[in-house]
Amino acid sequence: MKILDKLNSLDDLKNFTYEELKSLASEMRSLIIKKVNTTGGHLAPNLGFIEPTIALHKVFNSPVDKFVFDVSHQCYPHKILTGRKKYYENPEKYLEISGYTNPEESAHDTFVIGHTSTSVSLACGIAKARDLRGEKYNVVAIIGDGSLSGGEAYEGLNNGTTLGSNFIVIVNDNEMSIAENQGGLYENLRLLRETNGQAECNFFKSLGYDYYYVSDGNDLSQMIEVLEKVKGTEQPTVVHIRTQKGKGLKAAEDNKELFHWIVPNLLDENNEIANTQGAECPETYASVTIDFLLNKCKQDKTVFAINPATPGAVGFTPDIREKFGANFVDTGIAEEHAVAYASASAKNGANPYLLLISSFLQRTYDQLSQDLALNNSPMTILVYWGAIQANDMTHLGCFDIPIISNIPNIVYLAPATKEEYLKMLEFSYLNKEFPLAIRVPFTNIISTGEVDNTDYSILNKFKVTQSGSEVALIGVGNFYHLALEVAQNLENEGIKATVINPRFISGLDKELLNSLKENHKLVVTLEDGVLDGGFGQKVASFYGNSDIKVLNYGAEKEFPDRVSIAKLYEKYRLKKELIVSDIKEIL
Amino acid sequence: MKILDKLNSLDDLKNFTYEELKSLASEMRSLIIKKVNTTGGHLAPNLGFIEPTIALHKVFNSPVDKFVFDVSHQCYPHKILTGRKKYYENPEKYLEISGYTNPEESAHDTFVIGHTSTSVSLACGIAKARDLRGEKYNVVAIIGDGSLSGGEAYEGLNNGTTLGSNFIVIVNDNEMSIAENQGGLYENLRLLRETNGQAECNFFKSLGYDYYYVSDGNDLSQMIEVLEKVKGTEQPTVVHIRTQKGKGLKAAEDNKELFHWIVPNLLDENNEIANTQGAECPETYASVTIDFLLNKCKQDKTVFAINPATPGAVGFTPDIREKFGANFVDTGIAEEHAVAYASASAKNGANPYLLLISSFLQRTYDQLSQDLALNNSPMTILVYWGAIQANDMTHLGCFDIPIISNIPNIVYLAPATKEEYLKMLEFSYLNKEFPLAIRVPFTNIISTGEVDNTDYSILNKFKVTQSGSEVALIGVGNFYHLALEVAQNLENEGIKATVINPRFISGLDKELLNSLKENHKLVVTLEDGVLDGGFGQKVASFYGNSDIKVLNYGAEKEFPDRVSIAKLYEKYRLKKELIVSDIKEIL
Repeated sequence: MKILDKLNSLDDLKNFTYEELKSLASEMRSLIIKKVNTTGGHLAPNLGFIEPTIALHKVFNSPVDKFVFDVSHQCYPHKILTGRKKYYENPEKYLEISGYTNPEESAHDTFVIGHTSTSVSLACGIAKARDLRGEKYNVVAIIGDGSLSGGEAYEGLNNGTTLGSNFIVIVNDNEMSIAENQGGLYENLRLLRETNGQAECNFFKSLGYDYYYVSDGNDLSQMIEVLEKVKGTEQPTVVHIRTQKGKGLKAAEDNKELFHWIVPNLLDENNEIANTQGAECPETYASVTIDFLLNKCKQDKTVFAINPATPGAVGFTPDIREKFGANFVDTGIAEEHAVAYASASAKNGANPYLLLISSFLQRTYDQLSQDLALNNSPMTILVYWGAIQANDMTHLGCFDIPIISNIPNIVYLAPATKEEYLKMLEFSYLNKEFPLAIRVPFTNIISTGEVDNTDYSILNKFKVTQSGSEVALIGVGNFYHLALEVAQNLENEGIKATVINPRFISGLDKELLNSLKENHKLVVTLEDGVLDGGFGQKVASFYGNSDIKVLNYGAEKEFPDRVSIAKLYEKYRLKKELIVSDIKEIL
Repeated sequence: MKILDKLNSLDDLKNFTYEELKSLASEMRSLIIKKVNTTGGHLAPNLGFIEPTIALHKVFNSPVDKFVFDVSHQCYPHKILTGRKKYYENPEKYLEISGYTNPEESAHDTFVIGHTSTSVSLACGIAKARDLRGEKYNVVAIIGDGSLSGGEAYEGLNNGTTLGSNFIVIVNDNEMSIAENQGGLYENLRLLRETNGQAECNFFKSLGYDYYYVSDGNDLSQMIEVLEKVKGTEQPTVVHIRTQKGKGLKAAEDNKELFHWIVPNLLDENNEIANTQGAECPETYASVTIDFLLNKCKQDKTVFAINPATPGAVGFTPDIREKFGANFVDTGIAEEHAVAYASASAKNGANPYLLLISSFLQRTYDQLSQDLALNNSPMTILVYWGAIQANDMTHLGCFDIPIISNIPNIVYLAPATKEEYLKMLEFSYLNKEFPLAIRVPFTNIISTGEVDNTDYSILNKFKVTQSGSEVALIGVGNFYHLALEVAQNLENEGIKATVINPRFISGLDKELLNSLKENHKLVVTLEDGVLDGGFGQKVASFYGNSDIKVLNYGAEKEFPDRVSIAKLYEKYRLKKELIVSDIKEIL
């Protein structure tokens, strides 16, 4: 009988022998590998955190004691142990579980967490509530070494020592972020590992923490021993544990970055990397970007790319990073710093390109406003994955338009085609006047073959791509193609619409919009993002005092969680048939 | 002859004797005291940084070498030395100079800076640009001990050691933030001071920095000696200097917090605190808030107030903080942490009130979205100084509406009167359903005497306070009173307008807005903030497919710098006569 079959509650776990716990770890490892290789997801971080999780649940008393998992890339073992093993055992239930912690799934999950460097701050808040209420329980924040480069983690660590009560931080040091770690802190972690935690110069001690070091966090007995020691402490305490990312799966141990988050079926039946030799690598907007930047770097040594800790997500795999050399900088998980840093370098004669995922762009609003926009630095931000997506609610890409386009001075561009994107990139290199952001299309490559000759230094100039009357369709970026489809459907019904590719998200072409009043009754906006605070509402406001009617299409203000894109489009009426029907009702 | 009269360039400074430099410091001190006591401004930080600034300019070669002043609260001595002494000598020119660094004023200012914890990141970017361009010069970041609690500072420090080239950070340790320092780091700074920099456990060394300690940063010879030593270094280097905040002005040395930023005429002719005994202390929205919270704390020990490092700005002076005891938490300059911390405490049974200045709220967008909104924590944020203001461009208060009201789940309320505010506060205490933000009125207390009986758990219910026809005026919060004035003027011209106090900023009362279609032609929105992404644009979008016309009033998307409120209102047509004229044109 499998040990997992004997695990029906955390009490069962507490009664297992060491040998049984080891078998449990092994069984959990197999489950996680199979499940993640089927659905995709975070693999290596979870494999490295199985034994520590077992130890945590063996020693502490969840949910009375509280665990906060940073970014929750390492929470699958915790989920298996806390009543959710069926979602890992039964392939039919694989997709029913979130890849992140979520209190709606279990009382053992303290928060919805998907962005990084938050666990220490959140745990501080739990501890404060506990103390104000006069309660007694352990509060345990779990944070990876990579996440320690984020400012919020530091703010929490600095403040945690002022609590004066039980507060335990498990630093899960697997010597990796998603890619390599970046920053001076990591030399200190290395020193601590090399001295078995004995070095006097100690980042955590400098912030006031009691400090324990565990040389092998994947060793259950070491882990249980140290946790027993710190349980119930009244001192702020860091337990620094060394674990192996990808533990127990050779392919992952050998390829930590590749296995941080995997696509389905990366592994073959022997748990080796599936042979995809000869498979075509299609051109993507990410690859086009890399080609452009590499080429520019060759001509101009001041051009460089910056990304905070997610280089793989923007196509900067290790081989590409090597090609860039000093012209690529990974700042670590430090989006705020990345913006300030890039802005300052632009102001001082370099040509930085900051590559950001839409969902992580929001980690840096103040820096966009103060360090960048106020200083009018001519740097370029490339925003990836900006779109309405069927993603986890922690990783939505629909808020970048309201964020960027409502900050003064930043010009936000939305290309619809490869040619436009390339022209905008060329323009970005020449631009010395203002901060520029480009919303990298979230579509397959769409190429018209027509060279774009637009002068993007003439701001807020929309492009009419089809002249019509009665109704004008303004399709922003990704949704320009939807506008074309709607126009086609309208034409089939005898209505020749005007079609407009605005290219500029952050400002309106007032002259053009005014001219539409002559022979149009209705202006329709389509944007691949949330409506609130977005592009369409600016158009509606512009026409407020006129007879022109306006319909805005985009996402509602909400956090949809793993909802299929088809359902979202249906809900938001983002389908050509529905839009045509709405238009006909008004005309 | 005064030394200052002999100072016409930095070359003059470099040739002064030590004695002359000391006299220069003394003369600068007098100028700064007189100027700041006349105009208001940052006093104590500047007084403590006179000698270090003289030493910096004596040793380094600005503007070839680059100085970045964190938050630039300490840049007045630098301004005096770099061609701007007339603005401190001549009272008629006092108001012509910004209180912050600004490259448009001088090539010696590297950035526009007014928010904190940015200097190290910005300096990193300069150094990177220098290295990519193959240039040689010193890059010097100046940062106060207080600013070190901010995450962006840490991100920059962590990353700075990866540059592998000249990078100097001056840590100006005056043992104070605006109020007291908060966090474990400050125990390490104390240890370093007590050991004359010799302690092995050293926060800066743990991040990879060469480290120098200066026991008296206000001693010119000590400062010059250490700067000569580090000039031209190829190692990332921290120079930790101990200075005295308020140096040379006894009243400021004794009252560091009060003298951080002073109102005009705080000092009398003897440079002592002017006698204001007997002066009336009018009730303000800040004092009303404090009364409410103190009272609630007495009844419920889980109620607590949180503020990141600007307690005085929200009325939490030292005596008030003492009254709150453990029910007030200053997180240090750590807005991100403050939101996550408060959110987590709310989720775990406490009743946190986070008090934030509008301009600093934007330092925490991602935490509002992820740590708070996604988790639907029932905490309350009180937003102060949210308004169109004649402020420095680094401290505008007009962006909080687009930020908060476009994030799902957060309910943003705008009271117009004391009674509404008190009712909303009472509601916030009872609310266990969602995150709540309240825009504390930026007006004098306006009290109607009528108790507000609204049930604010019924979301997005606007209140019609006057029924009319043809035109409806929706005045948000502070501008509800403007709506009343406009209505009065319209009535004088025979037009009875409908007047609406929406109270809710983050959502629309669709039922009410629909009902207006019956007998109104025009809906006018008035909001005390930027139009882009704001409340009015949502109303315009709502009416897009109807015959109702909409006029949105608010601020343009721009960064006005110290423009008088009268000029701004004129520009934005935020005057009752102008609005009435616009309305009549449409009706």
